[in-house]
Amino acid sequence: MDIKEKIETANKLALNKMASIQPILVDIKLEAMSIIPRMDNQTILHAGPPIEWGRMCGPMQGAIAGILVYEELANDTEEAYKLAASGDIKFNCNHDHDAVGPMTGVTSPHQPVFVLEDKESKKQAYCTLNEGRGKVLRFGGWDSEVLERLNWMKEVLAPTLKKAIHHANGIDIKAIISESLHMGDEAHNRNRSGTYLFISEIVPHLIDTTDNATAKEVFLFLKENADIFNLNLSMPHSKLIADAARDIEYCPLVVAMARNGTDIGIQVSALGRRWFTAPASKVEGLYFPGYSEKDACPDLGDSTISEVIGIGGFAMAASPAIVSFVGGSAVEAVQRTERMYEITAGRSNMFTIPSLNFRGSPTGIDVRKVVELNETPLINTGIAHKEAGIGQIGAGLTSAPLEMFHEALRSFGKKYL
Amino acid sequence: MDIKEKIETANKLALNKMASIQPILVDIKLEAMSIIPRMDNQTILHAGPPIEWGRMCGPMQGAIAGILVYEELANDTEEAYKLAASGDIKFNCNHDHDAVGPMTGVTSPHQPVFVLEDKESKKQAYCTLNEGRGKVLRFGGWDSEVLERLNWMKEVLAPTLKKAIHHANGIDIKAIISESLHMGDEAHNRNRSGTYLFISEIVPHLIDTTDNATAKEVFLFLKENADIFNLNLSMPHSKLIADAARDIEYCPLVVAMARNGTDIGIQVSALGRRWFTAPASKVEGLYFPGYSEKDACPDLGDSTISEVIGIGGFAMAASPAIVSFVGGSAVEAVQRTERMYEITAGRSNMFTIPSLNFRGSPTGIDVRKVVELNETPLINTGIAHKEAGIGQIGAGLTSAPLEMFHEALRSFGKKYL
Repeated sequence: MDIKEKIETANKLALNKMASIQPILVDIKLEAMSIIPRMDNQTILHAGPPIEWGRMCGPMQGAIAGILVYEELANDTEEAYKLAASGDIKFNCNHDHDAVGPMTGVTSPHQPVFVLEDKESKKQAYCTLNEGRGKVLRFGGWDSEVLERLNWMKEVLAPTLKKAIHHANGIDIKAIISESLHMGDEAHNRNRSGTYLFISEIVPHLIDTTDNATAKEVFLFLKENADIFNLNLSMPHSKLIADAARDIEYCPLVVAMARNGTDIGIQVSALGRRWFTAPASKVEGLYFPGYSEKDACPDLGDSTISEVIGIGGFAMAASPAIVSFVGGSAVEAVQRTERMYEITAGRSNMFTIPSLNFRGSPTGIDVRKVVELNETPLINTGIAHKEAGIGQIGAGLTSAPLEMFHEALRSFGKKYL
Repeated sequence: MDIKEKIETANKLALNKMASIQPILVDIKLEAMSIIPRMDNQTILHAGPPIEWGRMCGPMQGAIAGILVYEELANDTEEAYKLAASGDIKFNCNHDHDAVGPMTGVTSPHQPVFVLEDKESKKQAYCTLNEGRGKVLRFGGWDSEVLERLNWMKEVLAPTLKKAIHHANGIDIKAIISESLHMGDEAHNRNRSGTYLFISEIVPHLIDTTDNATAKEVFLFLKENADIFNLNLSMPHSKLIADAARDIEYCPLVVAMARNGTDIGIQVSALGRRWFTAPASKVEGLYFPGYSEKDACPDLGDSTISEVIGIGGFAMAASPAIVSFVGGSAVEAVQRTERMYEITAGRSNMFTIPSLNFRGSPTGIDVRKVVELNETPLINTGIAHKEAGIGQIGAGLTSAPLEMFHEALRSFGKKYL
């Protein structure tokens, strides 16, 4: 076989491996450090490629300050900033710990996390529970409202859902994501149908395992945050699928893409855990009243794991309604999906797009094609204020910068040519 | 004003009146005859324009035979056929009683019915509860499985939902239908998102008003029949909206369109309660295994009230996934919606279509335009077996026949020219 054939064979293997994964929500652990590998009570995980404290963007620093107070490692955010800068806290990226997190992606030792497990291999991926809209840690919020909600999530939401998940004997998240694409979601910034589908799976088990008042309280939280709740299930689901394509010789497919608000990085199947990075992009978006592009933090979050497996921005044709949130027109949404077929290795057999006559979504970003066509992955995303403590100010569209794909391809060439 | 201006003014008024209606699910009555006007315990209502027993299609006769046994007016279907033919039972169409029903549309004195009410005018419309899939009365089923389910619906489903609806202080069905069009429904043959939205409204009130076992039983019935349950809420919702356009002088808009499997008929705003009819059309469709067009009953049901207000077949562009059920391609679904703009008076301000950049759906079928352009309303629909006792054999697409629009336009001309 010449190298081209070896690459084609490797890509096929990667797509087949990805297709074989069946992510099941099997548990919630009330303390992340009890399940996430290599995590102790001084470790804080964050979104994107690794980054030291001093280079972190405003909302990521803010979220970390907030979570250090939540962890009772600091009494207030001022103290928390000092502690974070002191070197006593170990920072690392979620992806190095089988985890993902939206926006700042902060995952701390005593936060509850969803545990998703592949049915066959039993491999796991982790993600915190979504806080909903409003003032939230993931967008860099840190005030008492944020912390109160996090405490409620730990004391009420997480243990209640945990019991229901056990009683349900697990919930098939791939089935939910797949169906939600037929119901107008793209499962990154539009998750409404996915959340309703999750609700419809969990409700009978909530009823069986929880007192009525608590069941109702939890149900109403899910319903009020239907727009977004399912994202934190969609992401670790995508992480499990993407991880299946890791470490295949000759495979130039992207297996992780993530942003920390300062840098964006990708990892490539044949190139191990090395991050190829570039400065995080600006996001063109629709801003909430009173905010504009000058207030915006650059592209942020692990949620681009969606695009890695062919949903999110890559499946925008499935979700015409999302343009009212991230901008653009419905026709452009279809065109964007069409363009992503040009840079991907194949079509998903799991995720299909009704408006394209149920064509499988474009799956497996091939760094060769990205460079050759000068066409980079489309990302749709929320936008955080660049300063800590403020939160979400809009949502929009951006593209991954080309240079990191160039760098990855050079490295790929060096290894194999 | 010349007549053209008078018609334009009348159409505007009709569209405004339709837009002002806010159908709220306010109650379930456990016995239809306790709320439906002019109904006694010898009255059976059916879909479509009025029709005598001898001319009814097979599934309608079958459903009536089944419901006479349910009503304990006959001991078995054989006896029921004799009773139905005897002249002792009064048959009339739902539309003459402020009601609608899918497929055979049979509504009997002791069946439970949804009560929808316009918030402002307090006008009401009625519809039985949807039986779900499988062997069902509305498709002409009549066996013990059908009757057992109807009894369970009367004894468990209806009283349970009734309590929850009261506790919720009513449920806004227009809000649900409107949102469901952004989630891949067209609210006639695809109602999945609508049902999930209904579930998400009703669950907290179920929890508050019912024991856990019953709440779960009812919840699971709704979930298992998510595809279709919301249709019987969508239809009376549409009936209330369509009725708002009735009896406007100079208004040539269709206010009812319904089929009984033998005839199809329309009523026109300026022309009172007169039905303009034609033979019911054949339906081009996707058939379940073992069945084909030769087994099919012609077009059947009141569910075309959807198309009258601009959803269903008129909003297929909102529902690309429906083509897997009724046939055609996603591109054709968009084209069909585009064509319906040609024969309608305006765009809905209530129901918008994301894939057309949130354009309002085509609303208000103008008989003048239908005749002038030789373009008749698109209908998507379930298909019943032509014989009684069998049930659904597929789903598909058809068009309303032109001749009844010609007849209506002639009558309109006679009145005003």
